Amino acid sequence: MDKLISRRDLEFLLYEVLDVEALTRRERYRDHSRETFKDILDVATRIAAEHFATHNKKGDQEEPWFDGEKVHTIPEVKAALEEYRKAGLFAATHDYELGGIQLPYVISTACGAFFKAANIATTSFALLTAGNANVLRKYGSQAQQKKYLIPQLEGRYFGTMCLSEPHAGSSLTDILTRAEPQPDGTYRLNGSKMWISGGDHEVSQNIVHLVLAKIPGGPLGVKGISLFIVPKYRVEPDGSLGEPNGVKMAGLNHKMGYAGIPNCLLSLEDAVGELVGEPHQGLSYMFTMMNEARIGVGMGAMALAYTGYLHALEYARERTQGRRLGDKNPTSPAVPIIQHPDVRRMLLMQKAYAEGSLHLCLYAARLVDEERTASTPQAAEQANLLLEILTPVVKGWSSELGLKANELAIQVHGGYGYTREYNVEQFYRDNRLNAIHEGTNGIQALDLLGRKVGMQGGAGFELWAGEVQKTIAEARTQTALQGYAEQLAESLQATTDVTRALLGRAAEGAVERAFANSFAYLELFGTVTLAWQWLQQAQKSLGKEGPFYQGKLEAARYFFNYELDKVPLLAARLKRLDDMFVCPEQDWL
Amino acid sequence: MDKLISRRDLEFLLYEVLDVEALTRRERYRDHSRETFKDILDVATRIAAEHFATHNKKGDQEEPWFDGEKVHTIPEVKAALEEYRKAGLFAATHDYELGGIQLPYVISTACGAFFKAANIATTSFALLTAGNANVLRKYGSQAQQKKYLIPQLEGRYFGTMCLSEPHAGSSLTDILTRAEPQPDGTYRLNGSKMWISGGDHEVSQNIVHLVLAKIPGGPLGVKGISLFIVPKYRVEPDGSLGEPNGVKMAGLNHKMGYAGIPNCLLSLEDAVGELVGEPHQGLSYMFTMMNEARIGVGMGAMALAYTGYLHALEYARERTQGRRLGDKNPTSPAVPIIQHPDVRRMLLMQKAYAEGSLHLCLYAARLVDEERTASTPQAAEQANLLLEILTPVVKGWSSELGLKANELAIQVHGGYGYTREYNVEQFYRDNRLNAIHEGTNGIQALDLLGRKVGMQGGAGFELWAGEVQKTIAEARTQTALQGYAEQLAESLQATTDVTRALLGRAAEGAVERAFANSFAYLELFGTVTLAWQWLQQAQKSLGKEGPFYQGKLEAARYFFNYELDKVPLLAARLKRLDDMFVCPEQDWL
Repeated sequence: MDKLISRRDLEFLLYEVLDVEALTRRERYRDHSRETFKDILDVATRIAAEHFATHNKKGDQEEPWFDGEKVHTIPEVKAALEEYRKAGLFAATHDYELGGIQLPYVISTACGAFFKAANIATTSFALLTAGNANVLRKYGSQAQQKKYLIPQLEGRYFGTMCLSEPHAGSSLTDILTRAEPQPDGTYRLNGSKMWISGGDHEVSQNIVHLVLAKIPGGPLGVKGISLFIVPKYRVEPDGSLGEPNGVKMAGLNHKMGYAGIPNCLLSLEDAVGELVGEPHQGLSYMFTMMNEARIGVGMGAMALAYTGYLHALEYARERTQGRRLGDKNPTSPAVPIIQHPDVRRMLLMQKAYAEGSLHLCLYAARLVDEERTASTPQAAEQANLLLEILTPVVKGWSSELGLKANELAIQVHGGYGYTREYNVEQFYRDNRLNAIHEGTNGIQALDLLGRKVGMQGGAGFELWAGEVQKTIAEARTQTALQGYAEQLAESLQATTDVTRALLGRAAEGAVERAFANSFAYLELFGTVTLAWQWLQQAQKSLGKEGPFYQGKLEAARYFFNYELDKVPLLAARLKRLDDMFVCPEQDWL
Repeated sequence: MDKLISRRDLEFLLYEVLDVEALTRRERYRDHSRETFKDILDVATRIAAEHFATHNKKGDQEEPWFDGEKVHTIPEVKAALEEYRKAGLFAATHDYELGGIQLPYVISTACGAFFKAANIATTSFALLTAGNANVLRKYGSQAQQKKYLIPQLEGRYFGTMCLSEPHAGSSLTDILTRAEPQPDGTYRLNGSKMWISGGDHEVSQNIVHLVLAKIPGGPLGVKGISLFIVPKYRVEPDGSLGEPNGVKMAGLNHKMGYAGIPNCLLSLEDAVGELVGEPHQGLSYMFTMMNEARIGVGMGAMALAYTGYLHALEYARERTQGRRLGDKNPTSPAVPIIQHPDVRRMLLMQKAYAEGSLHLCLYAARLVDEERTASTPQAAEQANLLLEILTPVVKGWSSELGLKANELAIQVHGGYGYTREYNVEQFYRDNRLNAIHEGTNGIQALDLLGRKVGMQGGAGFELWAGEVQKTIAEARTQTALQGYAEQLAESLQATTDVTRALLGRAAEGAVERAFANSFAYLELFGTVTLAWQWLQQAQKSLGKEGPFYQGKLEAARYFFNYELDKVPLLAARLKRLDDMFVCPEQDWL
């Protein structure tokens, strides 16, 4: 099963490009080495191939069902997660004291790529649990950690995030779930929560819901949102399971993909909850999980793009059809379709998107390690700031490119790709969710332009631009890359100019006009960011022998000639600041 | 059920833009009038809404199944097609003598748009039958017409087209099915046919397969392909059904969409066939059906885009979420999401794609009428030539834009759009096929650049450019449209320059290099073509009152500012004539 993620490519990115080995010189990771990374990547590769990929299609075709009492999933889901648990993967990044092995987040993310490529639905149980655990590790009391964190790190309880409600998806200001304080210090929660992945099932012993709700009398809007732990079964002081809590399954959503994990409407009916941290700080706590989830979504989109690409590549090498252009001799043998220019175009696009996004996602994951283990608080803050600005790009742009890649993986397969007898149509259906969940890409674009690039007086943007500039400066010294360096420099300048112009207009009060084209801004920023990543990959490939490195140089060439060339067009659209998308008084739509 | 296709828009295109009423002055259509058109459009709208849309979801969820003997479909399929039959729609465009009403093809196509928007799978039974019937009308003998055409026009038999084989989809040169002549004048066919929509079922009394096969000893390659009628049940001289023929169901393909119509692998085992026309002329006969099918695919992609747009529009008007950008007051009420710029962007893109493609498809359909009823042979030939060059654009570009439109329809719905509880996810899955069948879009792009623009010394291209030029000349006299006229003129010039450069290089022998980027050429040609159509719609809307016409002007503005602005970029990519996609000696992919 070598069609998940290329280990060769992964190792190129980890060691030749991102120098992840340097992390092993940090105190936290001192017990690690390239060998320990290899061991855990081997384990992840094996379990993903043997236990996750093997039921990906079955999980899609036999989606979870609710019998009125319980939500059922195919048994392979539980069996696969049991292997994941036994390998210690739930706790891997955590402290030794919590049962972890202090694995760098970037290596854990790399492991996750194999699982997502193999079976994004089943993997989601584990990754939601990991995100939930990270919130409790950061903000939970010691008692809460004992009750709810440890069992998640042991893989006995799974976690969810409960933010959206049926009437409020993107707009958390408007959530209605209420949490009434009780004399015993707990809260009683009532309300409806929508789109809860892993919201109910029998795969784990218990489910830890992290729920956003409002305490009556609190501030209006998002400032009045608090965070609660609401377990499916109440947990007794000795850790044993008690009564079912008031979390009722109100319905399953039937999705076009990601079918293997139940997605639920939950009804909270006098459910007992424990407040996490301080009242009214819930949203900021939840952003820990949301930011992680957003990087996870980008990774998922990338992983599906990557495995789709490897499937298409194999198919294109094996399938023969037609002759080379210009060869009109009907007796010459049919050639593998990889020789046809339009097929190569589609493969190269997929390669550029998948391998470029993998680089970006790993870069973002490495920033998490940087933030955690940097030698100075300033360095940690810088890593955090860079991560803040890149998060909407990792989520939003990887999911746009990933979906396009899977569309092309089908196209390379022709009619076969449209059938369930092959795998790529499922990747495409699964991947369609990634532009939607954890904040639609429209929301990501607004987050990027309306919040992130302007935050701290533009410090995040300048930091990002400075990093891109470093790569440009280095590439200018490499003859073969000077053209790319100049093109990227011009693109960066155009992005900087546009950013200033838009933020300036917003500051003057024309907020709607300035941000109306935010999606084009995401496209611009995402394209420049990936070009920057590809330039780094080209730098590390230059002068090295063999088809692997040549493929990297060709993909970089593709990216600069067929993607980064859009920058002047995108910048021009943004600079026009036209009112095309601003809602008029009298609507004509 | 007003979310199929806007009648208002359809009538604008038919009467205000395309002047379809002028056809009623032609001899063939002399009994028709705007009133008869209205009557039949009313019938189509009603049957589509009441009998086709109503089982669209059920047909998707309960796909056809094969019990080892028969292929079953849900009963609603047969019931809907019975309504279609009773309304006389199978024969509508045909001569009075054949039971038709000599309806213009463009009106029939407009009717088809409602059916496709309502249920593209069930409609496909009817449209494959119509295409099959047209081949028999043109090339069948009188005896064959009596036996196979009349029952199709009466809706008693359905038709298929059997071209592809498991190993040969795009490359018909390589088909292996053999047809051995028999002493009685019939042929015995043996071979496998793949991707046969409606290849087996119990919906009609009989199935008329039109099959491409090779007669042993004929010329090599496509010049040795002949066309045969192979009925499912043999037909006795008196028209009664005889023995089953040797057409065996070898398997159903399970598709991600278009699920309601069975798609089969058929095995021909000594099947009795009748030769259509002359031996070895099969491919040219089949192109009658394929060209029609390709326009049909473009129409289908457009219809799905259109109904998806109307669904998204309704949802965006009703769903409230968040506040206008810049309004930070959490107590102000949530607004309908249609007021958010990014939602408007997504709606406007869908509108521009769906309404622009509808125009293009109807324009192409009107050319069929023109070809058939033009007052001079020259005019007929010109219509044919224009249709030839536009066919790959109608098929290829409408299906690219249509899929994108449906992707956006889901996005407007957020998470709800990803679920089967709503309709748009099915449109998206259904529409994914349109870029593949009847020749993948890669094949369409090659057909356009490698064959159509150069045919007859470039006469088709010049004719197309001349038509675009006429619109430009007229728009130059309309002050409000002069900017668009100049932009389109520049785009047309760029397209002309690029076309000359590419055909020139191909003529010098660098065929692969010249055509390697043919997909970008399709994008260029398709974008200019749709801009031309949108300029015409703007011309006919100028100075007219009300939101309908303002919406048209805004959509045209969108198209020129956010689609046609890509032309310099696309032209630059093509002019580079780089070898990026040409397969090298040592592959690095």
